Amino acid sequence: MALIVQKYGGTSVADPDRIRAVAEHVAFTRRHGNDVVVVVSAMGKTTDGLIKLANDVSTTQPGREMDMLLTTGERISMALVSMALADLGVEAVSFTGSQVGIITNTAHTKAKILEVKGDRVREAVAAGRVCVIAGFQGVSTDREITTLGRGGSDTTAVALAAALGADACEIYTDVTGVFSADPRIVPQARKLAHVNFDEMLEMAGAGSKVLALRSVEFARNHHVPLHVRSSFTWEPGTWVTSQEPNMEDPVISGVVTDVSEAKVTVIAVPDRPGISATLFEPLAEANVNVDMIVQNVSKDGTTDISFTMPKADMKVAEQIVARIAAEIGAAGVNHNADIAKISLVGVGMKTSPGIAAKMFRVLADNDVNIEMISTSTIRISVVTAASDLERAARSLHTAFGLDSGQAYSAPLPERK
Amino acid sequence: MALIVQKYGGTSVADPDRIRAVAEHVAFTRRHGNDVVVVVSAMGKTTDGLIKLANDVSTTQPGREMDMLLTTGERISMALVSMALADLGVEAVSFTGSQVGIITNTAHTKAKILEVKGDRVREAVAAGRVCVIAGFQGVSTDREITTLGRGGSDTTAVALAAALGADACEIYTDVTGVFSADPRIVPQARKLAHVNFDEMLEMAGAGSKVLALRSVEFARNHHVPLHVRSSFTWEPGTWVTSQEPNMEDPVISGVVTDVSEAKVTVIAVPDRPGISATLFEPLAEANVNVDMIVQNVSKDGTTDISFTMPKADMKVAEQIVARIAAEIGAAGVNHNADIAKISLVGVGMKTSPGIAAKMFRVLADNDVNIEMISTSTIRISVVTAASDLERAARSLHTAFGLDSGQAYSAPLPERK
Repeated sequence: MALIVQKYGGTSVADPDRIRAVAEHVAFTRRHGNDVVVVVSAMGKTTDGLIKLANDVSTTQPGREMDMLLTTGERISMALVSMALADLGVEAVSFTGSQVGIITNTAHTKAKILEVKGDRVREAVAAGRVCVIAGFQGVSTDREITTLGRGGSDTTAVALAAALGADACEIYTDVTGVFSADPRIVPQARKLAHVNFDEMLEMAGAGSKVLALRSVEFARNHHVPLHVRSSFTWEPGTWVTSQEPNMEDPVISGVVTDVSEAKVTVIAVPDRPGISATLFEPLAEANVNVDMIVQNVSKDGTTDISFTMPKADMKVAEQIVARIAAEIGAAGVNHNADIAKISLVGVGMKTSPGIAAKMFRVLADNDVNIEMISTSTIRISVVTAASDLERAARSLHTAFGLDSGQAYSAPLPERK
Repeated sequence: MALIVQKYGGTSVADPDRIRAVAEHVAFTRRHGNDVVVVVSAMGKTTDGLIKLANDVSTTQPGREMDMLLTTGERISMALVSMALADLGVEAVSFTGSQVGIITNTAHTKAKILEVKGDRVREAVAAGRVCVIAGFQGVSTDREITTLGRGGSDTTAVALAAALGADACEIYTDVTGVFSADPRIVPQARKLAHVNFDEMLEMAGAGSKVLALRSVEFARNHHVPLHVRSSFTWEPGTWVTSQEPNMEDPVISGVVTDVSEAKVTVIAVPDRPGISATLFEPLAEANVNVDMIVQNVSKDGTTDISFTMPKADMKVAEQIVARIAAEIGAAGVNHNADIAKISLVGVGMKTSPGIAAKMFRVLADNDVNIEMISTSTIRISVVTAASDLERAARSLHTAFGLDSGQAYSAPLPERK
């Protein structure tokens, strides 16, 4: 008998019909001889509604009270899913993060999991019950209710799967899996049967929204096989595991696109030690999430420094950068929100030289001008004009053989 | 420095504007040198909305999961009120029933409070903080989340006031206090400055909706002075205490009307021992809340048995009564939902003979036919046709001197 952790996101439990559909799938999994632990997010737009209420009531929002407020969303979902299971004759019991013993640090609204006790879940599973657990929440070492921040329910599911020694952690969402590219941008994009943890981490870092980066990191560190799939079609999705690709597998797994960032260039910065720190320290203090940083070699004793960051942080960053630029005697500052980031990701890159060169050639042949470049061992990212996004992504998808066939022919992890 | 427990009902925290108004009143009370512990209900129709969700999802609603679902409403309110207080510069901290240590028995959806620990509240109050506590909920001796049933938030407030040794428990609601009659039925009705616990209990039992019976019982048993007042006008309301009336006080405090009940008569029941038990035991088992019971003396070896109960229970009761009537050989069953119950309540009744006679005379003079009568030491209730309700209530209100003057001139409990 396998133990499966199933996590259902907000769209999967958005209304009573969807909740009943989830219950039927849980019942189906149970009746096929598996123990099932379910982790749920808040229904649809519940969390947004609660945040709006808080904004309407107060401009002062202590983290402790925000966490108390927001954790109600998942409690509602877990109680409703348990009732729907009861209706199907499946014995189910719901637990809050606190009841499960998801112990976090005391950083309200973005707490980190320190330990998962899980005793009540183990007891309930041993007694033949399905457990339905509130995602996104825990209880701090100070006995206060905490939330895990963005993507928190995925992290709850993975952490539980690790603590319980689950055979797999299924992440149900509104897409059918991880794709070789965003199908809205690259129509030929295909669903990948398998992705390596390192690739998935780079994809998440490059802007893929399918899985939260933290949960993938956790799954990799604790060897929890993930299965990303759709709660609308229930078809098999994408496995994310530590399995390395075979020699015959394509070198590149996917093209990841991201239009959520903006670019800032500080022009003619005097080239002396410590200048970069002077610029980026205040941005870090203001929680501006700087992504790519490019600094060209100095000419005439000055250099241009460009970096990208979320468009959402633009307003905060503008003021800081303008101030610092004046202080350090730079010639000026350019902002550009009309950019796109396009990344190639694939573990095969480690053993295949020349991928970057081929990428630049393909883009040049398609009249795409590259504004910035950054690389890791298994990823190459370029920044282009936003208007070049589709042309660049489609031509790369074709050139790297992603338009047809399986990205990986390696056998899938066995489903017990 | 006095310690005041303030309870705000659903209409008092129905929307962001009302929540901010509540926060301002709490801040006002705090700045006038009082320690304040706030107990909140769920916002407006939140609980109804959650029940509807449960009904849409499942016909099987385990009490444990219903309690988990419904307790989210008060958590939302308490977090929002705490934030609104923070906005006003008042240090506030919210606690769930479980965090406060409101220990209940294991009867989900209608749990009884066994103990209030209150350690975290005492600590927070000692540290100068306002505590905002979720009403209606506790944690059972099995460590499960429970709810206290109808009027539960009032009970939370009174139990906390008792445990903390509070100087008063203020119950904020959408009316300005306890009235000598329902102003919608008797326009001359006046707000009472003071009501005795025993009177309030009889009023609640006779159909007054201002305070839940359980919370009044709790307040009486633990000597917690209650102050019922409006969160819309903030004017002084009605004190409910153990203080006995003076000799000069009117004998009757109020006329209570109730149209929520229906009457059933079982005709020509064979008059033999055990017949009443045969009829009322199955009703009790079906949770039909029988109120008045009248059985006339037997003639020709048979008797008529009449009783009243909530109209809401009519459907369940009808089937049971029809079955039992046939079994015991009664001649038939009459139902009548077009009835009203009118009660006179006053502790002065104990020492003033002739109140019942005067009541019947007034009703007779006003052509009101009495269908049933029941009495306690401080209450007389009659059942009449629903169409006689207004005429009966108004004439009694006038005849017993309630139209003008103070019902009680006894001094109010001092507000420290």
